[in-house]
Amino acid sequence: MTDYRRLRVALLGAGAVGSQVAGLLIRHADELADRAGAALDLVGIAVRDVDAPRDVELPRELFTTDAEGLIVGADIVIELMGGIEPAREQILLALTSGADVVTANKALLATHGPEIFDAADQVGASVYYEAAAAGAIPIIRPLRDSLAGDRVRRIMGIVNGTTNYILDRMDREGSDFADVLADAQAAGYAEADPTADVEGFDAAQKAAILASLAFHTAVPVDAVHREGITSIDKAVMDAARGAGYVVKLLAVCERLDGADESPSGEAISVRVYPALISREHPLASVHGANNAVFVEAEAAGNLMFYGAGAGGVQTASAVLGDVVSAARRHIAGGVGVGESTRANLPVLPIGRVTTRYQITLEVADEPGVLATVAGILSERSVSIATALQTVLNEANGEPGTARLVIGTHSALEQDLSETVDRLAASDVVARVVSVLRVEGE
Amino acid sequence: MTDYRRLRVALLGAGAVGSQVAGLLIRHADELADRAGAALDLVGIAVRDVDAPRDVELPRELFTTDAEGLIVGADIVIELMGGIEPAREQILLALTSGADVVTANKALLATHGPEIFDAADQVGASVYYEAAAAGAIPIIRPLRDSLAGDRVRRIMGIVNGTTNYILDRMDREGSDFADVLADAQAAGYAEADPTADVEGFDAAQKAAILASLAFHTAVPVDAVHREGITSIDKAVMDAARGAGYVVKLLAVCERLDGADESPSGEAISVRVYPALISREHPLASVHGANNAVFVEAEAAGNLMFYGAGAGGVQTASAVLGDVVSAARRHIAGGVGVGESTRANLPVLPIGRVTTRYQITLEVADEPGVLATVAGILSERSVSIATALQTVLNEANGEPGTARLVIGTHSALEQDLSETVDRLAASDVVARVVSVLRVEGE
Repeated sequence: MTDYRRLRVALLGAGAVGSQVAGLLIRHADELADRAGAALDLVGIAVRDVDAPRDVELPRELFTTDAEGLIVGADIVIELMGGIEPAREQILLALTSGADVVTANKALLATHGPEIFDAADQVGASVYYEAAAAGAIPIIRPLRDSLAGDRVRRIMGIVNGTTNYILDRMDREGSDFADVLADAQAAGYAEADPTADVEGFDAAQKAAILASLAFHTAVPVDAVHREGITSIDKAVMDAARGAGYVVKLLAVCERLDGADESPSGEAISVRVYPALISREHPLASVHGANNAVFVEAEAAGNLMFYGAGAGGVQTASAVLGDVVSAARRHIAGGVGVGESTRANLPVLPIGRVTTRYQITLEVADEPGVLATVAGILSERSVSIATALQTVLNEANGEPGTARLVIGTHSALEQDLSETVDRLAASDVVARVVSVLRVEGE
Repeated sequence: MTDYRRLRVALLGAGAVGSQVAGLLIRHADELADRAGAALDLVGIAVRDVDAPRDVELPRELFTTDAEGLIVGADIVIELMGGIEPAREQILLALTSGADVVTANKALLATHGPEIFDAADQVGASVYYEAAAAGAIPIIRPLRDSLAGDRVRRIMGIVNGTTNYILDRMDREGSDFADVLADAQAAGYAEADPTADVEGFDAAQKAAILASLAFHTAVPVDAVHREGITSIDKAVMDAARGAGYVVKLLAVCERLDGADESPSGEAISVRVYPALISREHPLASVHGANNAVFVEAEAAGNLMFYGAGAGGVQTASAVLGDVVSAARRHIAGGVGVGESTRANLPVLPIGRVTTRYQITLEVADEPGVLATVAGILSERSVSIATALQTVLNEANGEPGTARLVIGTHSALEQDLSETVDRLAASDVVARVVSVLRVEGE
């Protein structure tokens, strides 16, 4: 075996991903050395409890509770603890000690990204985070490097495996949200407290990271508009299916023109919500817990990146790719490539975005209702693309009422949401059954 | 605007891609400078005829016929001439003059890749070639960097847009090969001489590049087994559809175990042929002239990369991403990351591969035929997974004959192809209608 320069690799955290990373570093040491051009010596694993059970059997002498002692002197620090502190502090320590950092910590990057990237810039080190955006799907390098000479118009991502698993099963089986969620929890696809997934918090963090990268702008997670999937029930799913759509929780990152806030008129929108997408769209065929990121670029056209969204060993693959990159940089010398946030575009609130709504109403089954509804829409210049009225009976609803599904043309979110408020307040509308955006058209 | 260090960029060739690259370099100069951390000055465009018409309007003073003069003194040389010579010579000149090189030249890399990568290694420069493998789809960085810590088991790629366009239309419309080809030529989707596309030469070059990268092994294009799509007719398409398959021209790059040729027992196979793929497989939904690369990795699981396979402006996006990477490397300092061919695995001939065949035969409609056919298969230990016999009449064939479709279990190619020879020679077989491999199961 070639006599390689040796690099000291420190691992922080030995959970589902961390223990897989440690196992692969040890098991594939020779092959990784060939690829990195350097031997990657795992010198220690910092954990809270050295005796806790692990997913992978690892040499006991590697474990330590002294994270700081391990970090100082390492060439590459892999942070897989998750959470904000002490991850933030230890990453900053690693950077100031001269190490490159690999992390999968989306919560940290979506809240303290600029601080960490600045710290790396100041010492000429690099922070790698392929595993933070869409599990094992290689999306960071394509956005940062491959599309660096292009302009991204829009990203639509299915970036949360749990919600895609739930929505996909509801769609295929006609089941209800609560039942599928309970099943998903039993099968380990959803956490006991599913809030982070089903309320879109996890997807919002990933959206912030993807938007920052695609638009060269620091996007804090607070600037991401977020809606979860808990209001999606069997009726909504059935209606979507009937209209040729499927419901997906989408992270949408979009470049907008004509904004007064920026000299170029350019701004961005970053939002997470359940949306209707045509069954012909490539994202519609992303099933189960898989993820996919659909990118619309000015020159490259439409691209899609598809793969497993989560899982210990899948995420470990992304982490190890970053470790090899970090090692190559160490060997090659030179300074790391910093994050580009020079575009610094304003992030507009959801009201400023142009979308299309599909509004499902329960209305009185009497003459003139459609005219009244159409009148309310026209007050805010919302024009109707499709309208479908179904008279309800005992089998499918309240006799004497009808279900009215209105698809709008593109309009400003603010006008659309005010229109929905007016509809809800109208005498002819018994109930607003659902309001969903239509994306990907 | 920031006062950036200036880099001299030389462009060789101003065809469909080259003129788009030049136009984007000029039009997006400020934005590219921000992303690269350096101003990218297009200092000249070497062409054979400075007065030839171009797709994009460009300043006349940039054009020169003196390629060598332009190359010497450039920091980054973009080679978009195509062909082997003088592209090879000029790339070598660029590298020895201290420039990094960006190229989209798949023919050159698939034949002279090792020579060019060695030359780059010797001077510490880098060769970037994202546009050479699958048009605008970012696949090189994911394979080289993102999956550097993983092990790729298999790649199945739809890497030629022309043949996918033809096969997709044949599948959707039930049309015949010759008619669709003529249409594709009229619409500009296929060349007047379609040989490079329909005989699989273009796909074989891309397969060689993908396999080299995925398996860290120099794979010359001559080692790629290649079959084209000219034998795919309406009857083959109909039979595939009836069985739940679609026919795609696939580039398959596979890691094989148990080979005596290598100390580890590992070897690879690289092959291009039309194959049956289940309609449920993600590759089946790649329509029109689009490309997609499906990657099966040990840890990351299944990934797919999808996008436009060709087109001047799409390919220009990939080239510019490489130019920005090359510029960052120049600014950061350090040596370039060389190609890793350390694994150096043997490339096995097609006969050593394990595949599944779907064999369609025209046989006499008489008792005992299936037994005879089954007997011939068992002689080479090929076992039958499915058998479907349809009696033919005047409407669908020769009365008194039957069509027999045999799906085999996995077996060695050599045994399968010998079995087909024996079937063809058998008295009960009137004609071997088609033989296709089944992939992706």
